[in-house]
Amino acid sequence: MARPRIVIVGAGFGGLSAAHALGGADADVTVIDRRNYHLFQPLLYQVATAGLSPAQIAAPIRAILRKAENVRVVLGKVSGVDKDRRIVKVEDRKEVPYDYLVLATGARHSYFGHDEWEAAAPGLKKLDDATGIRRRILTAFEHAEPAGSPEARRRFLTFAVIGGGPTGVEMAGAIAELAHVALRHDFRAIDPGEARIVLVESGARLLASFPPMLSEAARRSLVQLGVDVRLGMPVTACSGEGVIIGDEALEAATIVWGAGVMASAAAHWLTAEKDRIGRVMVEPDLSLRDHPEIFVIGDTAHVLAATGKPLPGLAPVAKQQGAYVARLLRARLHGKAEPEPFRYRTWGTMATIGRRAAVADLGWVKLDGTLAWLLWGIVHVSFLIGFRNRLVVMLDWMWSYVTFQSGARLITGPGSH
Amino acid sequence: MARPRIVIVGAGFGGLSAAHALGGADADVTVIDRRNYHLFQPLLYQVATAGLSPAQIAAPIRAILRKAENVRVVLGKVSGVDKDRRIVKVEDRKEVPYDYLVLATGARHSYFGHDEWEAAAPGLKKLDDATGIRRRILTAFEHAEPAGSPEARRRFLTFAVIGGGPTGVEMAGAIAELAHVALRHDFRAIDPGEARIVLVESGARLLASFPPMLSEAARRSLVQLGVDVRLGMPVTACSGEGVIIGDEALEAATIVWGAGVMASAAAHWLTAEKDRIGRVMVEPDLSLRDHPEIFVIGDTAHVLAATGKPLPGLAPVAKQQGAYVARLLRARLHGKAEPEPFRYRTWGTMATIGRRAAVADLGWVKLDGTLAWLLWGIVHVSFLIGFRNRLVVMLDWMWSYVTFQSGARLITGPGSH
Repeated sequence: MARPRIVIVGAGFGGLSAAHALGGADADVTVIDRRNYHLFQPLLYQVATAGLSPAQIAAPIRAILRKAENVRVVLGKVSGVDKDRRIVKVEDRKEVPYDYLVLATGARHSYFGHDEWEAAAPGLKKLDDATGIRRRILTAFEHAEPAGSPEARRRFLTFAVIGGGPTGVEMAGAIAELAHVALRHDFRAIDPGEARIVLVESGARLLASFPPMLSEAARRSLVQLGVDVRLGMPVTACSGEGVIIGDEALEAATIVWGAGVMASAAAHWLTAEKDRIGRVMVEPDLSLRDHPEIFVIGDTAHVLAATGKPLPGLAPVAKQQGAYVARLLRARLHGKAEPEPFRYRTWGTMATIGRRAAVADLGWVKLDGTLAWLLWGIVHVSFLIGFRNRLVVMLDWMWSYVTFQSGARLITGPGSH
Repeated sequence: MARPRIVIVGAGFGGLSAAHALGGADADVTVIDRRNYHLFQPLLYQVATAGLSPAQIAAPIRAILRKAENVRVVLGKVSGVDKDRRIVKVEDRKEVPYDYLVLATGARHSYFGHDEWEAAAPGLKKLDDATGIRRRILTAFEHAEPAGSPEARRRFLTFAVIGGGPTGVEMAGAIAELAHVALRHDFRAIDPGEARIVLVESGARLLASFPPMLSEAARRSLVQLGVDVRLGMPVTACSGEGVIIGDEALEAATIVWGAGVMASAAAHWLTAEKDRIGRVMVEPDLSLRDHPEIFVIGDTAHVLAATGKPLPGLAPVAKQQGAYVARLLRARLHGKAEPEPFRYRTWGTMATIGRRAAVADLGWVKLDGTLAWLLWGIVHVSFLIGFRNRLVVMLDWMWSYVTFQSGARLITGPGSH
């Protein structure tokens, strides 16, 4: 009998954890991703705000999976799945056949039907998004410096962050620190400390998935950093001029979108039942109904938690799901009993606001301030698994914490000449 | 009397060294560059070959000049100079008036009248050039892995480097090490060790500006690394298919251009006399004839050495010239005697070939092999002045030397999806 072929699409936290756990299994594993690197997405906002550079939060997939000799990596963009012929279609490539398929294709940002806002208000999902936002933020200061009128200067120094979830909170805090501390002595005509950072959330509180007391702690920390926090305010338009918040027009040269998330096209490829944000409805063992050979995991799967609500799109959820599917497949390959339905074991959730400010909900205890920040730092550095530069990132952080000198402050890419 | 205005165009080694030395002088200094960072160009080839990442060899100009309070930095692209009105024209900006002007606008690569070769054979001068070449090199391996035919595979695994000067020698050596060592275990279908690296030089020896014995040492080291060195072979065409070397067609998916250099447009802006490669002919004090208020330094100036030959386009030359002009201007501002004509004090030149292989000509001694490499490493790390990450680069190098794991191996930018 030929060795079974397992195809994993996507090398994010879910796909990589599945591939890792299938290393050495009695199967030929193929990981397909359209990029050659795995991205440590929880730190992506630090690249966007010039705190870290891309190489510090990304590592080549091949290097990570080097030792798993039964795993091969294919660089390519998947365009569809043929469930009947059991084939994954890859653009510009021949088809890739599978016996088992794991879709871990993640999510992207969504504009609630206003895709035309994207040009003015880019979201933060990919590495190129982050370097693009970094370019916009740094260029805004460069334009403010020689600006002719106080109005123009004010517009260049106004930054609107839309969405009060973890991404929005982290971005607003980091832009405030960049402007008020890191860039303080870099300009002659302007004072970057005058920069206005406005965080807009349509709901009644920040970090809606956290306990209310931590939402309030986050709001207070942001205000202390000089962020203008607007709650209960829907954004009704975004353009090159700025944003309309409720009835108010806010002139802002830089807008960052952190409000909506939308699952990848997996549900479309599978013509499967999906939820409101496009996630595939899966069985308790993460497989597709009537297709026990297809699994969907991570941000692109709709899985119910014990609470009856769907699990959030977090790295630990995706990782545990990837490991679960690998365990299930190993059991099936060896004719052993398959594991119990998937259950997410949470250790807590956290979000960082700035230097020495974060919130952490560990269930049994809720933390904010310096302690939460230290915990956040330890957890994030230690989860940079498979990265050669864990040590370097740590040193870099310490260095940047002490000196506030940022080597990651480069304006690169198209449009930067 | 108003404070004199000194305008420096270009924040490479020359411009930055002038700006640095004018910090605290009794003058208003403006540095104009079209990028927000200074680039440590001698290590650019390491970014192109995935050894270092951009942030490790670039630092924001504002951060470097932060403490020089009389120096302001303007991000903008200079489009011309009006010598009569003493004005520098900046695109999209108002004009910048000067009393003294220092042009340090460097050089770019040249295709000897074959600009149509550029698309197939990119050169290496800017940071985006380096990430672009890195993308091409890494993508070639990705395409080779699933290639259908042995011919296609061979084409993807063939790398042609054109030009046997320091850039070509360094690139060929680094690509060979990337293929033969760093990527060795990353692929399943191909063996990156089979990659062919062909270095083509039209002259009779490599590193023509070095003593012949070092040229031969460099050639031997490259051959040891598995590089196919072709001397006395002119390239007659470059295209997407490959290169034509003499009469031979070499199919190569990746071509890197390191053959020709051409000065910036400074001579054109000044309507000044220039040499064969576009460098401005300057007076012994680096000023423009009949314009004692205009200075041209670095790769864009034609300055005669004691030997009667023009000085080479090297970082130390540019740095000494920048410091010289600053000294001259300080003397002039204070009504003191101006310094003697500029004289370049050389400490030697070196080129690196690979791990533990380099050549160094210190005049009184010629070195090759490990000793030259160690010297090269020490000199380059210690010259990363003003970079926060000198320590980080050193640690990174040590780490990558020991492990050969490369975190800089990211395929980013347009065309990488």
